[in-house]
Amino acid sequence: MAEEQTLGLTVKKEEDFSEWYNQVVIKAELADHGPIKGFMIIRPNAYAIWETIQEYFNKVIFSHGVRNAYFPLLIPESFFKKEAEHAQGFAPELAWVEKAEGEEKVAIRPTSETIMYDSYAKWIRSWRDLPLRINQWCNVLRWEVKQTKLFLRTREFLWQEGHCVYATKEQTDKEVRLILDEYKKMVEELLAIPVIAGKKTDAEKFAGALYTTTIEALMPDGKALQMGTSHNLGQGFAKSFGLKFLDENRKEQLPWQTSWGFSTRLIGAIIMVHGDDKGLVFPPRIAKNKAVIIPIIFDKSREVVMEKAEKLGKELKSLGVFVDTRDNYSVGWKYSDWELKGIPLRIEIGPKDIEKKQVVVVRRDSGKKEFVPEKDLKKRIPEILEEMQSDMFAKAKKFLDSNIVEAKNYAEFKKLIKDRKFVYAYFCEDAEEEKKIKDETGATSRCIPFDEKEKNAKCIFTGKPAKKRVLFAKAY
Amino acid sequence: MAEEQTLGLTVKKEEDFSEWYNQVVIKAELADHGPIKGFMIIRPNAYAIWETIQEYFNKVIFSHGVRNAYFPLLIPESFFKKEAEHAQGFAPELAWVEKAEGEEKVAIRPTSETIMYDSYAKWIRSWRDLPLRINQWCNVLRWEVKQTKLFLRTREFLWQEGHCVYATKEQTDKEVRLILDEYKKMVEELLAIPVIAGKKTDAEKFAGALYTTTIEALMPDGKALQMGTSHNLGQGFAKSFGLKFLDENRKEQLPWQTSWGFSTRLIGAIIMVHGDDKGLVFPPRIAKNKAVIIPIIFDKSREVVMEKAEKLGKELKSLGVFVDTRDNYSVGWKYSDWELKGIPLRIEIGPKDIEKKQVVVVRRDSGKKEFVPEKDLKKRIPEILEEMQSDMFAKAKKFLDSNIVEAKNYAEFKKLIKDRKFVYAYFCEDAEEEKKIKDETGATSRCIPFDEKEKNAKCIFTGKPAKKRVLFAKAY
Repeated sequence: MAEEQTLGLTVKKEEDFSEWYNQVVIKAELADHGPIKGFMIIRPNAYAIWETIQEYFNKVIFSHGVRNAYFPLLIPESFFKKEAEHAQGFAPELAWVEKAEGEEKVAIRPTSETIMYDSYAKWIRSWRDLPLRINQWCNVLRWEVKQTKLFLRTREFLWQEGHCVYATKEQTDKEVRLILDEYKKMVEELLAIPVIAGKKTDAEKFAGALYTTTIEALMPDGKALQMGTSHNLGQGFAKSFGLKFLDENRKEQLPWQTSWGFSTRLIGAIIMVHGDDKGLVFPPRIAKNKAVIIPIIFDKSREVVMEKAEKLGKELKSLGVFVDTRDNYSVGWKYSDWELKGIPLRIEIGPKDIEKKQVVVVRRDSGKKEFVPEKDLKKRIPEILEEMQSDMFAKAKKFLDSNIVEAKNYAEFKKLIKDRKFVYAYFCEDAEEEKKIKDETGATSRCIPFDEKEKNAKCIFTGKPAKKRVLFAKAY
Repeated sequence: MAEEQTLGLTVKKEEDFSEWYNQVVIKAELADHGPIKGFMIIRPNAYAIWETIQEYFNKVIFSHGVRNAYFPLLIPESFFKKEAEHAQGFAPELAWVEKAEGEEKVAIRPTSETIMYDSYAKWIRSWRDLPLRINQWCNVLRWEVKQTKLFLRTREFLWQEGHCVYATKEQTDKEVRLILDEYKKMVEELLAIPVIAGKKTDAEKFAGALYTTTIEALMPDGKALQMGTSHNLGQGFAKSFGLKFLDENRKEQLPWQTSWGFSTRLIGAIIMVHGDDKGLVFPPRIAKNKAVIIPIIFDKSREVVMEKAEKLGKELKSLGVFVDTRDNYSVGWKYSDWELKGIPLRIEIGPKDIEKKQVVVVRRDSGKKEFVPEKDLKKRIPEILEEMQSDMFAKAKKFLDSNIVEAKNYAEFKKLIKDRKFVYAYFCEDAEEEKKIKDETGATSRCIPFDEKEKNAKCIFTGKPAKKRVLFAKAY
């Protein structure tokens, strides 16, 4: 019992969400603080999630003709000055490297638009070179000063950034949305997190973009988390970086560009959305290890049980099942350990189960127990995992749906934001007005959902005409 | 014809190896120079090789219980001072970041021993936490000033670095060798590059290590290329970074450590060893695209041939076969383009082949043509690819074997080094002496091969007793 107490969480998710999150991250060995303020160490338990996401998403983008590459970490100062809006957006976050004598000042990449497009300008000659679709998985650094929150707010994080070039606006519009739809699909089907997809208001769009699309999720503390963005960059960067191409009539044209990215903050979202008072809960599809077999050991039957457990472990290995063979820990301690670490299924096997030729399968999300005959395991385990995946999504969806409300006026809006809701409001999309709303309520516009229908309504803030409802929330 | 001339290489590999290499790298779109001196852009054609290597090697290390993680890019100045030899070794190559007020000075990682072991010291408590086996794939930066050579000498490169902790020296000795053997297997079986495995002399070992093991390959210009190293770090880092563990008797002990790594310079080795006057030649196992179908188009039969090519392309897709459907290029231009880019097999299909229900398969390495009946393609393509892989290794092995010679005295040694050989010599392993040899001949000791038998011989340089032959060469 003493062991279990040191292992478990000392706060409940409902009581102190922030402290609960920090404890899960550290105690489930997902991440740790680096020696320098704002830096994180992604430990193997979390890095494995990132690898699963990479594997999934690489297949997706390869199927769309995107290829991976790697561009330099350091970017010359002059590049940041080429696209004015972009430069201004990132200026305060840059980490400069002490320059070598006679060399230009360089900064660690906060994002790679500028250094990639400088090369694109050299590589693209004619319409035959388009579309050019490149993605990179890398580390980026933004020297923010806000309080560190592992996976959610760190100076360095890992991400993917896709950067594509097309001949026409239609193509960029189409592919901006194609990627956002793939993001939505991945987050909902792999991570079991429901999201709302839409367009950012001008005030919230990416620095230098024509427009930005986004997927937004609702965390249990009522804050929105941006899960991925896909931008139409228009022709601005092309103009600034000298991208051009000869069309089929050998006429020089300015190409169109997109960029899109998601980061390791997705791992933070999984923890927040699915975790409970016992620790992490992994959606089965994201977990590398799907189930742990725990032998229930009594002195008399030790050998028989261990042998059976190891035999089953071998038979079920290809399903992601393994055996906890550690003999220095009690069964109770092992239960707590794996609950903390979020493994989807626990398979208990004791002497009585062996007699009955069965095992007990326990779901991490619901605690639901099921006696499964040994002979059915190969069929039943994948079924239970899929049931669990779908139940976890349904639960998160129910939470999201029940927390989306519409405000009819500003007073109502303020109350709903205070109550930590996702709030719909007819809004005139005036950037100045948006800043005022943020200052007064702490809420930002998250997106104008794609499925929102146009109407002749009035902005609840200004009374000016407003065509669509905008989603507002406090955000990470 | 005009097109083909601009596409191809303008020098022969035998005539100007260095210029030939630069042309292949740029023209086959493997890499490009970044905007800052010493930095490279790894383009999709080369990054795909890196992905294949990652996929292969991840499987290997996972099977040995190693897990991937990610540690911060920036390392505090104080960490570099903890292990004296290590600090001295890397000091001239560090890139410092302009420090924020009140914060410690930090440098971009040249390697991650120090930052990883700082965390290890916190995570390891007892013998139960050992062995701890972690690897990371990341970018590192060494601000060298030598002339840039893409993939071989750049300030930033990608690599994997494994860092493991064990309770005993025996375990470290065993795993140092286990990893080196896996490196050798990967390089020989996947990259088709034969290597010599052995131990570094003290003068050439890793800064701070007890000893270093290495695999060394011979490039066509007679220079050695270090392909991977596996170090026994002893207990020095553990002492400096405060790693310790309680053994089974609850007594405090100092653990032992290993580290091991290889980098994107492996891509440079593939280019150098296998390339020819037409461009790249990919060993089939490393190529993502194994074969390109080129439809031989005549106006009359265009439709029939394209249809057949696309049908075959679909049927053979799972084997890595695709169709070059571009209709703005001549057949000859396409041949040259794919030869330059090194795709292992070219599959030609024209109207006469269709009549005969066959295709022509051409090997990139030997130019050997083979008529293959359509119905046999699924069986025959993988066979041809494996024959090619094995022939490419055999050819490289023959080159290596025929360039290894023994020097009986210093005069002979100097001549052989001048002739760009891998030279065996009995050597007393005196570090001062080794420096003198380097200054006089440009050669460095590459390794003391593992299969070298002990003998009571005399050092050919000093006349002092020498037990083993050491392999010397000029090196990249």
